[in-house]
Amino acid sequence: MMFLPGGILEEKIQGFLEEDIGQGDVTTLLTIPHGIIVEAEVVAEEEGIVAGIEEVSTFLRDLGFKVDIRASNGSKVEKGTIAMRIVGDARTLLSTERTILNLVTRMSGIATKTRRVIKKVRDAGYKTIIACTRKVAPGLLYFDKKAVMLGGGDTHRLHMDDLILIKDNHLAIIGDVSEAVKRAGKVASFSKKIEIEVSSEKEALDAVEAGANIIMLDNFSPKKIRNTISLLIEKGLRDKVFVEVSGGINEFNVVEFAATEVDILSLGEITASTKALDMSLDIIKVMEE
Amino acid sequence: MMFLPGGILEEKIQGFLEEDIGQGDVTTLLTIPHGIIVEAEVVAEEEGIVAGIEEVSTFLRDLGFKVDIRASNGSKVEKGTIAMRIVGDARTLLSTERTILNLVTRMSGIATKTRRVIKKVRDAGYKTIIACTRKVAPGLLYFDKKAVMLGGGDTHRLHMDDLILIKDNHLAIIGDVSEAVKRAGKVASFSKKIEIEVSSEKEALDAVEAGANIIMLDNFSPKKIRNTISLLIEKGLRDKVFVEVSGGINEFNVVEFAATEVDILSLGEITASTKALDMSLDIIKVMEE
Amino acid sequence: MMFLPGGILEEKIQGFLEEDIGQGDVTTLLTIPHGIIVEAEVVAEEEGIVAGIEEVSTFLRDLGFKVDIRASNGSKVEKGTIAMRIVGDARTLLSTERTILNLVTRMSGIATKTRRVIKKVRDAGYKTIIACTRKVAPGLLYFDKKAVMLGGGDTHRLHMDDLILIKDNHLAIIGDVSEAVKRAGKVASFSKKIEIEVSSEKEALDAVEAGANIIMLDNFSPKKIRNTISLLIEKGLRDKVFVEVSGGINEFNVVEFAATEVDILSLGEITASTKALDMSLDIIKVMEE
Amino acid sequence: MMFLPGGILEEKIQGFLEEDIGQGDVTTLLTIPHGIIVEAEVVAEEEGIVAGIEEVSTFLRDLGFKVDIRASNGSKVEKGTIAMRIVGDARTLLSTERTILNLVTRMSGIATKTRRVIKKVRDAGYKTIIACTRKVAPGLLYFDKKAVMLGGGDTHRLHMDDLILIKDNHLAIIGDVSEAVKRAGKVASFSKKIEIEVSSEKEALDAVEAGANIIMLDNFSPKKIRNTISLLIEKGLRDKVFVEVSGGINEFNVVEFAATEVDILSLGEITASTKALDMSLDIIKVMEE
Amino acid sequence: MMFLPGGILEEKIQGFLEEDIGQGDVTTLLTIPHGIIVEAEVVAEEEGIVAGIEEVSTFLRDLGFKVDIRASNGSKVEKGTIAMRIVGDARTLLSTERTILNLVTRMSGIATKTRRVIKKVRDAGYKTIIACTRKVAPGLLYFDKKAVMLGGGDTHRLHMDDLILIKDNHLAIIGDVSEAVKRAGKVASFSKKIEIEVSSEKEALDAVEAGANIIMLDNFSPKKIRNTISLLIEKGLRDKVFVEVSGGINEFNVVEFAATEVDILSLGEITASTKALDMSLDIIKVMEE
Amino acid sequence: MMFLPGGILEEKIQGFLEEDIGQGDVTTLLTIPHGIIVEAEVVAEEEGIVAGIEEVSTFLRDLGFKVDIRASNGSKVEKGTIAMRIVGDARTLLSTERTILNLVTRMSGIATKTRRVIKKVRDAGYKTIIACTRKVAPGLLYFDKKAVMLGGGDTHRLHMDDLILIKDNHLAIIGDVSEAVKRAGKVASFSKKIEIEVSSEKEALDAVEAGANIIMLDNFSPKKIRNTISLLIEKGLRDKVFVEVSGGINEFNVVEFAATEVDILSLGEITASTKALDMSLDIIKVMEE
Repeated sequence: MMFLPGGILEEKIQGFLEEDIGQGDVTTLLTIPHGIIVEAEVVAEEEGIVAGIEEVSTFLRDLGFKVDIRASNGSKVEKGTIAMRIVGDARTLLSTERTILNLVTRMSGIATKTRRVIKKVRDAGYKTIIACTRKVAPGLLYFDKKAVMLGGGDTHRLHMDDLILIKDNHLAIIGDVSEAVKRAGKVASFSKKIEIEVSSEKEALDAVEAGANIIMLDNFSPKKIRNTISLLIEKGLRDKVFVEVSGGINEFNVVEFAATEVDILSLGEITASTKALDMSLDIIKVMEE
Repeated sequence: MMFLPGGILEEKIQGFLEEDIGQGDVTTLLTIPHGIIVEAEVVAEEEGIVAGIEEVSTFLRDLGFKVDIRASNGSKVEKGTIAMRIVGDARTLLSTERTILNLVTRMSGIATKTRRVIKKVRDAGYKTIIACTRKVAPGLLYFDKKAVMLGGGDTHRLHMDDLILIKDNHLAIIGDVSEAVKRAGKVASFSKKIEIEVSSEKEALDAVEAGANIIMLDNFSPKKIRNTISLLIEKGLRDKVFVEVSGGINEFNVVEFAATEVDILSLGEITASTKALDMSLDIIKVMEE
Repeated sequence: MMFLPGGILEEKIQGFLEEDIGQGDVTTLLTIPHGIIVEAEVVAEEEGIVAGIEEVSTFLRDLGFKVDIRASNGSKVEKGTIAMRIVGDARTLLSTERTILNLVTRMSGIATKTRRVIKKVRDAGYKTIIACTRKVAPGLLYFDKKAVMLGGGDTHRLHMDDLILIKDNHLAIIGDVSEAVKRAGKVASFSKKIEIEVSSEKEALDAVEAGANIIMLDNFSPKKIRNTISLLIEKGLRDKVFVEVSGGINEFNVVEFAATEVDILSLGEITASTKALDMSLDIIKVMEE
Repeated sequence: MMFLPGGILEEKIQGFLEEDIGQGDVTTLLTIPHGIIVEAEVVAEEEGIVAGIEEVSTFLRDLGFKVDIRASNGSKVEKGTIAMRIVGDARTLLSTERTILNLVTRMSGIATKTRRVIKKVRDAGYKTIIACTRKVAPGLLYFDKKAVMLGGGDTHRLHMDDLILIKDNHLAIIGDVSEAVKRAGKVASFSKKIEIEVSSEKEALDAVEAGANIIMLDNFSPKKIRNTISLLIEKGLRDKVFVEVSGGINEFNVVEFAATEVDILSLGEITASTKALDMSLDIIKVMEE
Repeated sequence: MMFLPGGILEEKIQGFLEEDIGQGDVTTLLTIPHGIIVEAEVVAEEEGIVAGIEEVSTFLRDLGFKVDIRASNGSKVEKGTIAMRIVGDARTLLSTERTILNLVTRMSGIATKTRRVIKKVRDAGYKTIIACTRKVAPGLLYFDKKAVMLGGGDTHRLHMDDLILIKDNHLAIIGDVSEAVKRAGKVASFSKKIEIEVSSEKEALDAVEAGANIIMLDNFSPKKIRNTISLLIEKGLRDKVFVEVSGGINEFNVVEFAATEVDILSLGEITASTKALDMSLDIIKVMEE
Repeated sequence: MMFLPGGILEEKIQGFLEEDIGQGDVTTLLTIPHGIIVEAEVVAEEEGIVAGIEEVSTFLRDLGFKVDIRASNGSKVEKGTIAMRIVGDARTLLSTERTILNLVTRMSGIATKTRRVIKKVRDAGYKTIIACTRKVAPGLLYFDKKAVMLGGGDTHRLHMDDLILIKDNHLAIIGDVSEAVKRAGKVASFSKKIEIEVSSEKEALDAVEAGANIIMLDNFSPKKIRNTISLLIEKGLRDKVFVEVSGGINEFNVVEFAATEVDILSLGEITASTKALDMSLDIIKVMEE
């Protein structure tokens, strides 16, 4: 959902590498002679959706490698699929291997899970939007959200300045849903939508009547969701609002929630409980410069 | 295993916050008046080991909050345990809540898993060291390793300059285990240990004879591990070397590997496949300044 | 419209100071003894709306100054009004004076102009939203937008990730307004609005029919605007869309545009053609430490 | 007056872009396919002097664009003059367009005004140096000063370490002009000039006698300036000092001040009250990669 | 010669610490319990001039230490003199000890040598200015120059923007001394002096006649210097120019050069060949928190 | 001992350049026309070992220069030896000359001294390891250690996270050598060695018995060292430990210490008291672009 011109991502990945490498890779300097060129493959060790391939390729090309992308961002791989082929300086590759793999396997893990959740929902016949939340690994906001997008999910807020989202802790201070929406509506930029978290059917109706563009049903059971939707329909408000449900939804119960006909289901666990996709980097050919 | 003086961690957490906040928190400014003081609690929503509590507390104190730590780093919490109590400016808290929680819940998730793995091994009567690898989330090397340490695990290399660790891809170039160890031994600083990854019993013996301080048995089955250990004992080499096993070990088969009497088991999944510990931040009291 | 927790703004202002100060303030060290405490006033030299006062106050307090704000952000000052009173180390104040004034006078200049434009529109009886654009001074996005907000204007997009805004150059590639809106609508996050720039009445209708939330009439004359509005009303589409006009609007013709009953008028010149508000910093008392 | 080797400016401009782009350009990714190449022109929409052209060209070339400069830094353009022709990746261009234009139009606006002021002075037959002050936009010291230079003006101090300049607030502490100059003279590096702001004819004479290299007549009327110059001539001191006048000078009265035969006139408004030169970027051709 | 407001130096010293500490101090965490308070002394192990004391004190105070300065910047110490007494957290002190000492001992070594050179010149009855050059340790420009200043030397250029200094390599391109000075004079800001390096008596005269404010006699023998001075006197030019000599001057022959009556002697070795002053940090008292 | 992939060193050297250049090189812009290409040589002005050549070459190549390395890192040069030949833009070379030379001459000075010390020891027939300490110039840890390595020395700790090294100030708190080693041994990662500083023969024995991998004899006289070694041999502990001596060793007495048959001699002065190797950069050919 977002495009970054050259240089910005490379700088972030360089930062990850610098953290890992410290004062330098002592193993490589001691054991690998200067001037060796290698060919290596990044291979999937299990089935999944790859992500981060283009991000690390740009970075590797900046470091002087030739990179041949075999499985592009968002595509499906099987055990044994070669995702990238890399040719270049052996010392540099050995020093960056772990940083690159850590990024690609995390992003691929997130994309894989997102796609799996969406597939379940689509297979059951629902068009519900599947979104992530801001529960990302600190510092990886861009990469985690990009991975969700590549898996087919909705990125939700990109950060705290692109959507007005009034949550339970705001309401603990303001007290009243209608008042909160009105207060925001009076001063918000026309360029932003207004969303609010609600905890009861009544609050849901109040919020929509006060002008909220999106309501987030927080920890509602499927039954409570259906009640809310029915009430909105009754009052003729269903078309005026996007309905999001968040809290307690996971890969296993997602279809049950989708069946309630809400618009959006958001799952914190897509980015917060991640299983890196198993991938490895293997040197397959050694040449002199 | 590592101590950082004030300022360094705070700067990193500030960086995470800046990424999340963009041009500013639009919701908070629009809905929450200036000058509100709140009291909030960070509460565990499930059982586990907390980590990151002291890291975020220092950060919050720098932002002007009073923080009362109720569950210190490394301690066990139950569902409902209050980990921290925080008092201070409402707007600032609402803007930093997610960044803080993302860090604490990730670190606590890693510490919890580490502790669980270690408990299984200790309960089975083994003293094997349980270590993580460098498979961390990019940019979170310090935090992920610190969480492992708080869970009772060994941090392994902190980055690429603190241990000579010759891996399969190095060997793909050098060709020979003995040669690799000798090459490193000739030029390595006396202050560093030398470790090498081996793929057969013979390589294991060669490595130890060539002077390796640690050998890493890569993807060995328990049976193959036992063979290797027996051979080392036969040759009188067992006391000269630490034996680490890596590859294919997880929470469920770890005891089987521990039973082989190796010194160290390292599990990539401790940091690479993480389930954030469920925790929330709740405002419990609202005051005027 | 946006709130930043402590530390972020101070870091930016510190960066401005570092650029200005180079290897250090040679004048101050040579002529002012260590340990002098001064009291100083920041005084308006002309009528206007002040902005940036709270931003620089936080920065000055971090440097150890006592700051008494006399004219808060967004308030009106006359020639001679004291905006702030500052007490602290003479050397530090002399070294930071220009950086502080440059920020406050620029922001105040922008707030003053914004307020003046809005006053004209309100005095003529219109409720039109007056917005700025992204035509800010490079690096000053936050400060310029904040100043607009303090003057009563709408900040529009805070950066490129918070609104989908399809402009003439996008259309030069895509070719067709309907196609552009539909393409965006199919993949955009539910959390974002979609705006599109149009160059004819037909394009305006097409855009709304395709689902745009906001249309921007680019360089339309007041007459052409009225035609567009009429057509939207005729088609029953007026309530479905925000209508923004941009291009060729300035302080002098703004009322004429407001009279067309559009929703938003955006003026690049509010931030791109700025006249700093004349303000000075005067030391009024000298004390020993 | 200053030369920066490659990399430094690009890093600053990259910083401006990063601020603007946030988590990425959502519009461009959603609407523009990968692999489109465009040709675009930067065109002047009004008469003026262009500046910043070479700065942004280097930046664009680093991003992979071919750039053909048609109007070099400091040259005059008419309405319709093409300043640059740019060929390259459509997505990247659409994402950087505003950042580039913001820099070029601000710098060109400053250069245009500087040139206009100087032309008035030269047309009236005076050789007076026209200088800017440190009243720049925060963070844009280099760019604002460079624009002044391209307009033909003197950059004055580049920052606080390159000239000893004793101002009114220093004197509020030191008390006496002679004492201030002598104090500075005793310890200043031989590599720096000493300038002092004076508020009366007597102070002007005292400063020169104490050894000041430059005196700045602060807010002197033309008549008071003439008196001061006469007194300096009388005392045989005119050749020993540069005379600068600052305060209250603008585009409209500058000739009157130049007529006093001072050496330097410095105008804060050249950089503090800027009108961006109107320029646009238009895509004129769309190609496949 | 230069003053920096709070925050800037601390940031630089923090950077030095971060480089040294990597992922954290493993020794301190493992061996020193949390909550120990210590009192420590920084003691001179040999005679010299201390420098950097105030710089590191500010840094230590920011880290929460109480610091009592016993030997202020620029003062003389004997073997055994206590320069600072520090009270605070044991872990933090053990982690920062080496960074602090590295800065203080380098700066003190530079100040000591500068003072010794100057003393020789003054003892021989000459008032010659003793200056350093830009031959500093990379990244330590501020600290090395500050140390020279504290030793009583002249800091010369603070960086490349505060003096026009035409050197041999510029002349290798321009060809002619007069031409070079004139070219610079035509466009240089009035705020800067112009200096040029010359390699013969003739070039010296040409440079002064062309308007150079300072001439640098490059690698002149004392005899050649005297000739040049005589020629300048003959031509009535001696008062119009500062004469600097650079190249081949050291602690041992400096008096011989001073005897030539030039104005400035600059010695690269003051900052390029440094002997750190021997100082140590000793914990003298251990307390519980 | 350490390898850094492209980009990291260049960024550090760029930082050094930025510090030196400030707002830009005023001399070069004023006197050297755009578009001049020069050929230059970096020449040794005295005998020594060069270091830093490859580091600055990479940096220069990034700036667009063609660089021909004539004397590679670690090789010996005589007075007059050409170390590098550089071809490229004149303005850029004149602006970077000093930064490059400062780095190369410092590193070469350190490498030269290291090699000289080692030669003395080897010529006397000893194989003792010669190591540096952490007494480096702040911010130059990588470069100073790399220079030691190029001179043939051991880099010792690269920073505070790669060796457990318990020093006198730790012992001032812990009190007891055995206790300190045991405490560290219980929690240290298996990947790190444990070293401890001892001040008596008894402490040396205690440390080895407690399991220290390395002992550092602090300020021991050669006689006391011999006693310690004898005692270790007597107790059968000599083979279990590396023996390092530190304190009071210099170029002149190093052989006397080597004669004691310790394993490692570490000299702070290699990096703390440095004499830059005299080298110059001369433009030898001037061309038009």
